[in-house]
Amino acid sequence: MKTLNNPAERKWPQLAERSAIKQARLMELVDKVFYDIRKKGDKAVLKYARQFDRFSADDFTVDHETIEAASQQVSERLKQAIALAKSNIEKFHFSQKEEIVKVETSPGVVCWREARPIENVGIYVPGGTAPLFSTVLMLAIPAKIAGCKEIVLCSPPGKEGAIHPAILYAANLAGVTRIFAVGGIQAIGAMSFGTKSVPKVEKIFGPGNQYVMTAKHAAQYYGTAIDMPAGPSELLVVADETCRPSFVASDLLSQAEHGPDSEVILLSDNKKVVKEINKELDIQLANLPRKEMAEKALKNSRAILFKDVETCIRFSNVYAPEHLILAVENPVLRSREVTNAGSVFLGNYSCESAGDYASGTNHTLPTSGYAKAYSGVSLDSFIKKITFQQLSEEGIVGIGVAVETMAEAEELFAHKNAMTLRLGEVSAQQAKNYENS
Amino acid sequence: MKTLNNPAERKWPQLAERSAIKQARLMELVDKVFYDIRKKGDKAVLKYARQFDRFSADDFTVDHETIEAASQQVSERLKQAIALAKSNIEKFHFSQKEEIVKVETSPGVVCWREARPIENVGIYVPGGTAPLFSTVLMLAIPAKIAGCKEIVLCSPPGKEGAIHPAILYAANLAGVTRIFAVGGIQAIGAMSFGTKSVPKVEKIFGPGNQYVMTAKHAAQYYGTAIDMPAGPSELLVVADETCRPSFVASDLLSQAEHGPDSEVILLSDNKKVVKEINKELDIQLANLPRKEMAEKALKNSRAILFKDVETCIRFSNVYAPEHLILAVENPVLRSREVTNAGSVFLGNYSCESAGDYASGTNHTLPTSGYAKAYSGVSLDSFIKKITFQQLSEEGIVGIGVAVETMAEAEELFAHKNAMTLRLGEVSAQQAKNYENS
Repeated sequence: MKTLNNPAERKWPQLAERSAIKQARLMELVDKVFYDIRKKGDKAVLKYARQFDRFSADDFTVDHETIEAASQQVSERLKQAIALAKSNIEKFHFSQKEEIVKVETSPGVVCWREARPIENVGIYVPGGTAPLFSTVLMLAIPAKIAGCKEIVLCSPPGKEGAIHPAILYAANLAGVTRIFAVGGIQAIGAMSFGTKSVPKVEKIFGPGNQYVMTAKHAAQYYGTAIDMPAGPSELLVVADETCRPSFVASDLLSQAEHGPDSEVILLSDNKKVVKEINKELDIQLANLPRKEMAEKALKNSRAILFKDVETCIRFSNVYAPEHLILAVENPVLRSREVTNAGSVFLGNYSCESAGDYASGTNHTLPTSGYAKAYSGVSLDSFIKKITFQQLSEEGIVGIGVAVETMAEAEELFAHKNAMTLRLGEVSAQQAKNYENS
Repeated sequence: MKTLNNPAERKWPQLAERSAIKQARLMELVDKVFYDIRKKGDKAVLKYARQFDRFSADDFTVDHETIEAASQQVSERLKQAIALAKSNIEKFHFSQKEEIVKVETSPGVVCWREARPIENVGIYVPGGTAPLFSTVLMLAIPAKIAGCKEIVLCSPPGKEGAIHPAILYAANLAGVTRIFAVGGIQAIGAMSFGTKSVPKVEKIFGPGNQYVMTAKHAAQYYGTAIDMPAGPSELLVVADETCRPSFVASDLLSQAEHGPDSEVILLSDNKKVVKEINKELDIQLANLPRKEMAEKALKNSRAILFKDVETCIRFSNVYAPEHLILAVENPVLRSREVTNAGSVFLGNYSCESAGDYASGTNHTLPTSGYAKAYSGVSLDSFIKKITFQQLSEEGIVGIGVAVETMAEAEELFAHKNAMTLRLGEVSAQQAKNYENS
């Protein structure tokens, strides 16, 4: 890894910059595919599935028998692992349920919020060589806990023309209601607009390549919500002399193996530590099946030395990493200084792969610095919070004049009148009560 | 109001459709303005402010003296009203703070979430004839409670070349840190990219016309988050025989006076009620200063009769209104049936204008059916929730094999290795402890 020494603070924003993603040239293609899907529905989806995914069957709906059969193709060992992961993800996301808190802001004015599930959600699971069933768990489990009625999953068919059994198994286990062997722009388009086969959804979740990302951005333009904008995966590690260099190296590599555009950053206050980690990187890299990919990613990555851990964390806040490992002394105490990050892993035993699979936290997280404004996926991502309010006569008397005054100042006289009529009614009633008393 | 009678359920989606907003033709203009602002900063902002807002001064930064002086131009009566509104908005949004809940998902695996403020936020307040100081309160107060460091406000200068004193007063009171007399596309561009005068923000809030909405959409494309997509304001009222027709009419008009594209819908199970409300509409309309606007909005609006209140609410869920008034018997009980809405007002005394100004709920809400997937603005809108996790040796032993198995099945061997190394360390330690015991 290239090592920088104590860069000046004014250079930090530049050092924290990600390589820009060019979506503009893909937008034209997305527009064309979306237009066709709106007009021709399934027929257009099938056409593009054949063109882009070499799909050869007549129907991309995955039927119940195929889903059931998938279970037999998954090893017992993997099923047990998935069961543990599911249980932990459920526990953590279930704890995110909120109780209703009624607040009496003024006497007789009671306000509260209640959560309601987003009724129909869509999950996109990318294709590729390996089956990303962990993403299925991370998105379908909170959707199910939230109470979403329709949980649609789209994933491109693999080389054999079908979705990998592990994905089907995880989807069925986690509560996905409909599965389609469709990928790319056409999958996002089908879920956005709905076709005869694919239900229209209100929000689309999940990672994807540049085509999928551009399509999700376009879907948002047409009124479908998305989980968050996304870019290549990232890891930033802050390591001091208490770290285990071999652990840190393994974490950096587990990020680097995602692909050549993965971002890996190491920050330290200790030159010797960086040296040792570099040595460990070389050793571990030699045995990796994805060696080439990881090597390329490491070439774009860098180690930066700062004067102390505090400064490392300050830089990390400017960078706003998707994953942040604090392999430092007193990591929980240090974590208070973190202001921008997707998910934070504390201490030598908290490796990113724990959170990627089975600790219970969600692995769908903001990349590319979006952690400055976005949270990762959680139960919140699958619900809306609706505000409710109820005013009594006392409430009307208490805030009525304030509402009238403000409405008048904003020159909204019908707004004012809605309160004046109620104030009038309440005083008429009070007068009547007084007479009768 | 045009009245429909018991429309078939298959026609509901069509009846719930909003008139589409055409942003495409504005996008070119937005791109041009954004390009200039990125290249030339303040100079470009000033150029467009002169061109679009007839701004004539040299500096659009509102200085401290101007802000202080504004206070003297606001009446004591309005100040008192604003103070009450502020107190209620504070109470309700403060109640949205969440305690940290640490969850031990497996023995030795502890996961939790912590909120961090979005550091820099931008608030857009539209211009126009009346000063929308209530929007300032609704956005700046939760930003302040969240702990945002920089709260930037942009608003176009009025006819006198300056922002209205009531807006400046509310902004100063609520904790806005910087104010700029800039409006439209150039305001959104300046906050998105940052200029020498205007700080770059991570998220932009606030309503606006089609130019502002298109610019916010473009800002999102360039990496700045936005509160939510927005369209014209809406109100849906469900009224049964227990409603007060004059109150309902006043609520419908308070929505209609927003502008000719405002959407007003009345649902009822009672023909007589609709007739009475219509009669009240005519009476109240006659006295409104914004009569013409409200009349136009009412022309696009409709009353729909259904067989019962339950069906009314089911239609309302398909429509997903920004504001929903339930002027029916047992409104709190009925409210459980509501699945899609921005904010719900329960019973005859809960008028929308209470929530618009002073009850404490936020009035920045999802329109155009976005309530199916989006919540209104709340404290949540100004924070990110970061996940944290800490694993002990016990945690590693508990979930280690599951992580290894899943990583292997996804062909991510460096992910697996990060866990294998830790598992090895823990068993080596355990062996050592055993020998020593």
